[in-house]
Amino acid sequence: MSKQAIVGIIMGSDSDLPVMQAAANFLTDLDIPYELTVVSAHRTPERMVQYAKTARERGLQVIIAGAGGAAHLPGMVASLTSLPVIGVPIKSSNSIDGWDSVLSILQMPNGVPVATVALNAAKNAGILAAQIIGTNRSEVAAQLDEYKNSLQEEVLKKADGLKVMWPNGFDE
Amino acid sequence: MSKQAIVGIIMGSDSDLPVMQAAANFLTDLDIPYELTVVSAHRTPERMVQYAKTARERGLQVIIAGAGGAAHLPGMVASLTSLPVIGVPIKSSNSIDGWDSVLSILQMPNGVPVATVALNAAKNAGILAAQIIGTNRSEVAAQLDEYKNSLQEEVLKKADGLKVMWPNGFDE
Amino acid sequence: MSKQAIVGIIMGSDSDLPVMQAAANFLTDLDIPYELTVVSAHRTPERMVQYAKTARERGLQVIIAGAGGAAHLPGMVASLTSLPVIGVPIKSSNSIDGWDSVLSILQMPNGVPVATVALNAAKNAGILAAQIIGTNRSEVAAQLDEYKNSLQEEVLKKADGLKVMWPNGFDE
Amino acid sequence: MSKQAIVGIIMGSDSDLPVMQAAANFLTDLDIPYELTVVSAHRTPERMVQYAKTARERGLQVIIAGAGGAAHLPGMVASLTSLPVIGVPIKSSNSIDGWDSVLSILQMPNGVPVATVALNAAKNAGILAAQIIGTNRSEVAAQLDEYKNSLQEEVLKKADGLKVMWPNGFDE
Amino acid sequence: MSKQAIVGIIMGSDSDLPVMQAAANFLTDLDIPYELTVVSAHRTPERMVQYAKTARERGLQVIIAGAGGAAHLPGMVASLTSLPVIGVPIKSSNSIDGWDSVLSILQMPNGVPVATVALNAAKNAGILAAQIIGTNRSEVAAQLDEYKNSLQEEVLKKADGLKVMWPNGFDE
Amino acid sequence: MSKQAIVGIIMGSDSDLPVMQAAANFLTDLDIPYELTVVSAHRTPERMVQYAKTARERGLQVIIAGAGGAAHLPGMVASLTSLPVIGVPIKSSNSIDGWDSVLSILQMPNGVPVATVALNAAKNAGILAAQIIGTNRSEVAAQLDEYKNSLQEEVLKKADGLKVMWPNGFDE
Amino acid sequence: MSKQAIVGIIMGSDSDLPVMQAAANFLTDLDIPYELTVVSAHRTPERMVQYAKTARERGLQVIIAGAGGAAHLPGMVASLTSLPVIGVPIKSSNSIDGWDSVLSILQMPNGVPVATVALNAAKNAGILAAQIIGTNRSEVAAQLDEYKNSLQEEVLKKADGLKVMWPNGFDE
Amino acid sequence: MSKQAIVGIIMGSDSDLPVMQAAANFLTDLDIPYELTVVSAHRTPERMVQYAKTARERGLQVIIAGAGGAAHLPGMVASLTSLPVIGVPIKSSNSIDGWDSVLSILQMPNGVPVATVALNAAKNAGILAAQIIGTNRSEVAAQLDEYKNSLQEEVLKKADGLKVMWPNGFDE
Repeated sequence: MSKQAIVGIIMGSDSDLPVMQAAANFLTDLDIPYELTVVSAHRTPERMVQYAKTARERGLQVIIAGAGGAAHLPGMVASLTSLPVIGVPIKSSNSIDGWDSVLSILQMPNGVPVATVALNAAKNAGILAAQIIGTNRSEVAAQLDEYKNSLQEEVLKKADGLKVMWPNGFDE
Repeated sequence: MSKQAIVGIIMGSDSDLPVMQAAANFLTDLDIPYELTVVSAHRTPERMVQYAKTARERGLQVIIAGAGGAAHLPGMVASLTSLPVIGVPIKSSNSIDGWDSVLSILQMPNGVPVATVALNAAKNAGILAAQIIGTNRSEVAAQLDEYKNSLQEEVLKKADGLKVMWPNGFDE
Repeated sequence: MSKQAIVGIIMGSDSDLPVMQAAANFLTDLDIPYELTVVSAHRTPERMVQYAKTARERGLQVIIAGAGGAAHLPGMVASLTSLPVIGVPIKSSNSIDGWDSVLSILQMPNGVPVATVALNAAKNAGILAAQIIGTNRSEVAAQLDEYKNSLQEEVLKKADGLKVMWPNGFDE
Repeated sequence: MSKQAIVGIIMGSDSDLPVMQAAANFLTDLDIPYELTVVSAHRTPERMVQYAKTARERGLQVIIAGAGGAAHLPGMVASLTSLPVIGVPIKSSNSIDGWDSVLSILQMPNGVPVATVALNAAKNAGILAAQIIGTNRSEVAAQLDEYKNSLQEEVLKKADGLKVMWPNGFDE
Repeated sequence: MSKQAIVGIIMGSDSDLPVMQAAANFLTDLDIPYELTVVSAHRTPERMVQYAKTARERGLQVIIAGAGGAAHLPGMVASLTSLPVIGVPIKSSNSIDGWDSVLSILQMPNGVPVATVALNAAKNAGILAAQIIGTNRSEVAAQLDEYKNSLQEEVLKKADGLKVMWPNGFDE
Repeated sequence: MSKQAIVGIIMGSDSDLPVMQAAANFLTDLDIPYELTVVSAHRTPERMVQYAKTARERGLQVIIAGAGGAAHLPGMVASLTSLPVIGVPIKSSNSIDGWDSVLSILQMPNGVPVATVALNAAKNAGILAAQIIGTNRSEVAAQLDEYKNSLQEEVLKKADGLKVMWPNGFDE
Repeated sequence: MSKQAIVGIIMGSDSDLPVMQAAANFLTDLDIPYELTVVSAHRTPERMVQYAKTARERGLQVIIAGAGGAAHLPGMVASLTSLPVIGVPIKSSNSIDGWDSVLSILQMPNGVPVATVALNAAKNAGILAAQIIGTNRSEVAAQLDEYKNSLQEEVLKKADGLKVMWPNGFDE
Repeated sequence: MSKQAIVGIIMGSDSDLPVMQAAANFLTDLDIPYELTVVSAHRTPERMVQYAKTARERGLQVIIAGAGGAAHLPGMVASLTSLPVIGVPIKSSNSIDGWDSVLSILQMPNGVPVATVALNAAKNAGILAAQIIGTNRSEVAAQLDEYKNSLQEEVLKKADGLKVMWPNGFDE
């Protein structure tokens, strides 16, 4: 990872790491260089401002921000940079079933979008970041198409496996 | 209002003014000096940082912050000052029934509380600010007790009014 | 708009146009060429497949898809292309307060992300599309920074306006 | 199961099998031939199109489709065939309490119904499929009436069992 | 409508008629004979029992039942007949946003399914009834396929209409 | 109403009167003497204590309490008397869709029940009070049975009315 | 329990017994004779009709009905008798967090009330039944007042216990 | 703790102690004298009245009240004193996911505010109480600023820790 990071992955607390690691793993698989650190909107607001304001000049092209509860990190970072920001709502311990983080990240006012993915769906945040990178890097786009194929293969293999018990499956 | 403001009232947009004015009105009634302005977490994040970080030294003792949707203003201000911050969730136009602003303001992580009041309840934010001021100003506490009495009087008067049609009311 | 479209805007029905037009308007303002049409997941599933599968080769870089109720259009398009897909949940007439469209678009399974924006927030979808385009077109990034400034200016102007009645505002 | 399948049971992933098996079991009990396989709306969209478009000509009379999260499989299949489609919302791991799958399946737009059953209620999907088959096969209708009787018997037996401790029960 | 009714449409109150009429209209269009009346689970429970218990012998093949609030009609009818029962949740005046009728109809226990359609979606109930009838009447199935085509035509016409303003549409 | 009141109807504010009047009307119809007044848990807590603690000795047998928002009146009255208390959740102006009043009244802890009726369903509160009175007054029970019959008659009359357009109704 | 039952406790399934037993226990403590059995709205609808219609003549004064999911038992029983019916929403296994049973029981239409208690609060149903009995049996009312005192004593004892660690408690 | 208590911590039951202790601990850390006891709105309503009405004269400046389910304690105390009252919604055992306690505490009517903190967030209640005390005790304000610094230090240390695996972190 000595190459220049083009995706920044941040989270409000290292307790979010088990969820957020899935984003990092996907980028690693596609060999997309990224940086990863802890930035808290509520406990390190000035670090957050610094992070967001220097993001583009430091070479980042996309930021992935995960947070739980009253999740302000993705939206606040989006208010401080014009890079695309992907928000990952995290179902933290005292969350009200995840609704708080989903709504805090999703319902941004006009002018400041956050690209929100599903609850805890850090892997999808990684994929979305790669899709954004892939809009002008054809080799990344190709890798994503391959990944899409692998998803399909996996389903077909499972469908085959079910034929032992249910021979009346379905063949295209 | 030439006196030094001790309560700061801020809101994300001047479209929140019809709701937030109720806080200002209550403070005016109790002759508690306040300031009122627009500070947007998402559109003027740096103004927000300045506002919050200078609040105590500028003489403020309490901050009332109203916002709708993914309402980050109260929580972010609370992350930048150790003054008590009162949050007013506002049911804005594209809100999902107000749930987004309620949860974005209420569900703050441990370490950074926001004193949340009911949906659109700016008047209660004004009263709560006065209650905080009243913890060490006995004349404000006295005014609040008087206000409490007036609430009671109003109910008793209504109860009396109903006796025309329902003489079987109730007398203490 | 004779230039090659690089953003595709689609919606399930032309009754969604009053909402979705805001995305188109923002792209027009930034001079980003786009195409706009009606594609229904449930009424024209095969047109949808064609649209999504040919999107990249036709030159699109981002797709914006709006839909209400059991909103399947954004997710199904995302399953058929590796371009980034932005989903706009629309609060349609028989919607259950918008929850159905929000959850149908947001809660995509791992492998197939949709970049979801707030309920009815088509303008934010347009901005997010521009941000994605801006990751490798510096002039678009510059326009977005300018737009961010204009948002800030607007707030400051409103803050100034409030000073007539509340001179105790706040100056940075 | 060498007989021609008249019910098709499909699910988005084989992780849904523990839930969906209850539909298969009920059909087996009534000797109604069915096929069962994995078809994913998001990972094998073209397989899904094939499955749905050939369903009637392959002899199917009803399709049962189970899916979780942003559950698009039942609705998309319903958009591609005029056979009745029964949807089973599944409470998957990162589901928001099942609300996402319930609303994604239930809230279909006018023109394309999905016959939705309760969360995880695959057994009821099997019964409903049998009821549909039973509309023109009197022997299936008879079996369903028998099944209804057995449900009643079971309750009466339990009521009898409670009489040991609560002799004051109730006899019709 | 002198022909023997094969679909029964019932509703808890005639105030539900403006919603439920859409089911009747669709059946009329397809020339499927039906009956329509008011049966209230809570105000005429014995009429409901009679209705449901005689339904099959009177020649009905499907029952469509609409109800609002604590909507017990569809589920209770389903408990009294082995015909397929389609439930239409209606958003009545004091409903809690429709959630009460949706959950009261959808969440039936194992053994007694109700085929639930979207909130107020009586038209879809009519289509679903026709799909069930169509499982063994090829001319009804053909009409449904035609209807599906008409839905598609309508979308394509709208797409064409948009080309005046947005010539960059999409042609398959 | 010179007779001794045996039902007490109270509400938090006279703005609740348009809803609560339905309870009074039903009791008037059955000639059950009642009293009606305004008692606010939050503005006249001591009046509330007095009201509840003297209720039984003043001859009341049932209390109906209506309130909106954080609706504490029914539960607090129930904590102060062992008379049965019926709670009417009212959907007041800044309520979050009525959920707040429903949950504040319904979810009482073990030891202190409130007999909760539907949102705004003051008429049902009146009926329930009459049912309680009717447990030891056979003439009230008889009136309630008559009322039940009238509900049924009303439905049958409506069913008859529909026969003009839909002669295929249903006759028991 | 050889005495004539005056309270009837019914539940949809014996799996509800662990919850519903609390109602029985409270009545046993107050020596109020009751009957207890299983009556299912959906699996034994005719038994339910018999139960409800004969309830008053068999000597019952109150009915307690517990049910989960699409919980129709309390409301249907209330439609068939003019006795007061207490509904206990039960959080069953595939329930959507209990919302389904709460709303199915609470949101009854005008004319047919159910006295709803909190989720799983069968003990409160027992207390409420006793309160209703107590409206014309002074010895039951006296027992309820005693019970109320015991609740208070218990709290005071706990408050005393806390004084070991927190001597700064509070003495009235 | 022999010093005069200036914060009162109360809760509905000692089963709330594991949650509420966090408020006490924070005050202990800052050497702010407090009292702690059990006061139940529903089981000891008169003790509650006494507690609230004597609070100011006994020297309290802030009250923290925690309660679950239909949580009336914070709001009722607020109706009886003009001191600021902080409400802690507690997710108790039969709570409906915590929504009942959140809404019962938050949605207070105009005139009687409760400063609500997040679900189970007793620590934040302690901090908020200290912030209120700190409005006129500069040494408490100083301690709060120090605490804020410690929160920040903790995040920075975690960010440093992550650098072992992700050297591409971020340095301000």
